[in-house]
Amino acid sequence: MQDKLSLMIPGPTPVPERVLLAMGRHPIGHRSADFQKIVKRTTQQLQWLHQTKGDVLVITGSGTAAMEAGIINVLSKGNTVLCGDNGKFGERWVKLARAYGLNVQVIQAEWGQPLDPEAFRAALEADTAKAIKAVIITHSETSTGVINDLQTIASHVKDHGTALCIADCVTSLGACNVPMEDWGIDVIGSGSQKGYMMPPGLAFVAMSDRAWEACKHSDLPKFYLDLAKYRKSAHADSNPFTPAINLYFALEAALEMMQAEGLEKIFARHARHRAAAQAGMKAIGLPLYAAEGCGSPAITAVAPEGIDAEAMRKAVKEKFDILLAGGQDHLKGKVFRIGHLGFVCDRDVLTAVAAIEATLQDLGLHKGSAGAGVAACAAALAQG
Amino acid sequence: MQDKLSLMIPGPTPVPERVLLAMGRHPIGHRSADFQKIVKRTTQQLQWLHQTKGDVLVITGSGTAAMEAGIINVLSKGNTVLCGDNGKFGERWVKLARAYGLNVQVIQAEWGQPLDPEAFRAALEADTAKAIKAVIITHSETSTGVINDLQTIASHVKDHGTALCIADCVTSLGACNVPMEDWGIDVIGSGSQKGYMMPPGLAFVAMSDRAWEACKHSDLPKFYLDLAKYRKSAHADSNPFTPAINLYFALEAALEMMQAEGLEKIFARHARHRAAAQAGMKAIGLPLYAAEGCGSPAITAVAPEGIDAEAMRKAVKEKFDILLAGGQDHLKGKVFRIGHLGFVCDRDVLTAVAAIEATLQDLGLHKGSAGAGVAACAAALAQG
Repeated sequence: MQDKLSLMIPGPTPVPERVLLAMGRHPIGHRSADFQKIVKRTTQQLQWLHQTKGDVLVITGSGTAAMEAGIINVLSKGNTVLCGDNGKFGERWVKLARAYGLNVQVIQAEWGQPLDPEAFRAALEADTAKAIKAVIITHSETSTGVINDLQTIASHVKDHGTALCIADCVTSLGACNVPMEDWGIDVIGSGSQKGYMMPPGLAFVAMSDRAWEACKHSDLPKFYLDLAKYRKSAHADSNPFTPAINLYFALEAALEMMQAEGLEKIFARHARHRAAAQAGMKAIGLPLYAAEGCGSPAITAVAPEGIDAEAMRKAVKEKFDILLAGGQDHLKGKVFRIGHLGFVCDRDVLTAVAAIEATLQDLGLHKGSAGAGVAACAAALAQG
Repeated sequence: MQDKLSLMIPGPTPVPERVLLAMGRHPIGHRSADFQKIVKRTTQQLQWLHQTKGDVLVITGSGTAAMEAGIINVLSKGNTVLCGDNGKFGERWVKLARAYGLNVQVIQAEWGQPLDPEAFRAALEADTAKAIKAVIITHSETSTGVINDLQTIASHVKDHGTALCIADCVTSLGACNVPMEDWGIDVIGSGSQKGYMMPPGLAFVAMSDRAWEACKHSDLPKFYLDLAKYRKSAHADSNPFTPAINLYFALEAALEMMQAEGLEKIFARHARHRAAAQAGMKAIGLPLYAAEGCGSPAITAVAPEGIDAEAMRKAVKEKFDILLAGGQDHLKGKVFRIGHLGFVCDRDVLTAVAAIEATLQDLGLHKGSAGAGVAACAAALAQG
């Protein structure tokens, strides 16, 4: 059958019909008063989502563009940064920082394990010369399904006194609580095809006052990603370069839906889906990849022992048209990942668990009692 | 009335219904076989449009992002570049190149005048030390409605022997002939909301073999705009970062429509619309801003003497819901611009001229015989 695809990957995530309809509207002029109204409204909505009164800027690009902008606008050549790396995205920010000639100190954890906040505390405390200009952290590590303890790490950065806290919240924003001001985060990068319930194409950078202060002294070259330009335009309800207008229509519609649901309910829904996905997988004997208690609210990585995870993933796609994510890099074939991020309801999670369980059964690999996965998933959903 | 807006600006341009419907489809996974098919097909379509067998890469971003990528991937810090500047976009590439520490020699022409190819020939011939690494040219200068003689300038660059020819074809590609290989252009930047008949959000960079050779030695920092990453992914029918998937759907649909029409007919249509817009404006006594014979096929800039161009533009919007573009920077209030780029038919141009003429009449500013503009426009359309 055509057009029955169900997206259960960590991005692009499913998009509500009203957001798709907004996408399909005819563009309007991006220098018009009508478009200014949309910029103004979406800016307020974005501030609500980020729990900040500061600037949240919109770039046409991917989440990587947002993170790059956040990094290169507040740092200068040769600056020392402390970067957490416990997965593919942590690794990416290390590479990105090095591409700009930054001096990167890496705090690593094994894939599947969370970053140790104590390691950050120690490194920051040892930096009495205040050489560290920023700490770069991936909140939800999409490649491994691990959530890092951003709140605690941010508090250590605050204690350092001068370093900025730059957070990749690409798959955490809109999935769990990320109160930017309360936690003292200076830069947050995110992307539209995640918790925003939108197609990809827009990226968001939220900046604190401290981040803007650092911005004044930044000497790394940039033009399209020059946030000072975006800020100046944003204050006039505009954009420095022609933005993806139709994605702005979608943004307004999606954020309106998020506001109607409310942050607390959104976070509770994601927590419930994490619990349900985890319970379902455990009940059918499929081990979770993320360390106990460190699962991301956006994504559950599963490491089936003795089973080709890629073959499982493909079978679920072929039989049930549910797209799960595969393992990346050395996890290819060892891990599959269930995305439960954004426009995902209880039915979607129950369905994904049922399809995975049915596939195991069909392949003769189901080791527990038939239906145990769905039963455990249903029980967890009922509790949340 | 709502939703009757007619876009007659140089971007975003009108979008066909089938392209809008493609925009509104549910996203699919960007690492799926189905998406690879779209990348493969659109790459071939883009090569057709650029008249090249070389790489044409797709970036989620604006035309500025494409130009930035094209410049920073083939040059190194301190390199000398020769940059044409006869309008807002020429000016922008000068600023961009300087932001990256390039040594920019500027060849200027007054706004409204074309760049003088002889000035480029002389500067390139004088460069016996071969210090000039690239020449940056805006083909259609959107701010003034002037088309520069890219073909002749590119031939002078070729005679230089080592400099690369980098062209901003944002409002010329898909409007007039830009045979990349035949003219020896090394880098072409363009954007989706122009001749492509799509909403904004995708940017395109076409690269020659010589450009890739230069790329190997480029030391300017980049990550999101690192074209080597895009090339590697493109050769696997993919994209290095999550692309604007729905805009890819639109791209496939729009390029299919362009291929059905054919390049020659597309170019003839734009030439006819330029002639018709120019004839209409002249017939009602509104002088053209671009020098005679140098009008862009994408846009006609009009400089009404003794009339507030911005007031005219607003009146046309209010009375007829046709959006014309205003003048930029020092041209604000002095110039309005009629976009006739992309999905524009004879009726649209006739309508725009009629609306402008009717507005003049209504304001008591029509100096010729009533209906002369529409008559002249119609005659020009009939000739093409």
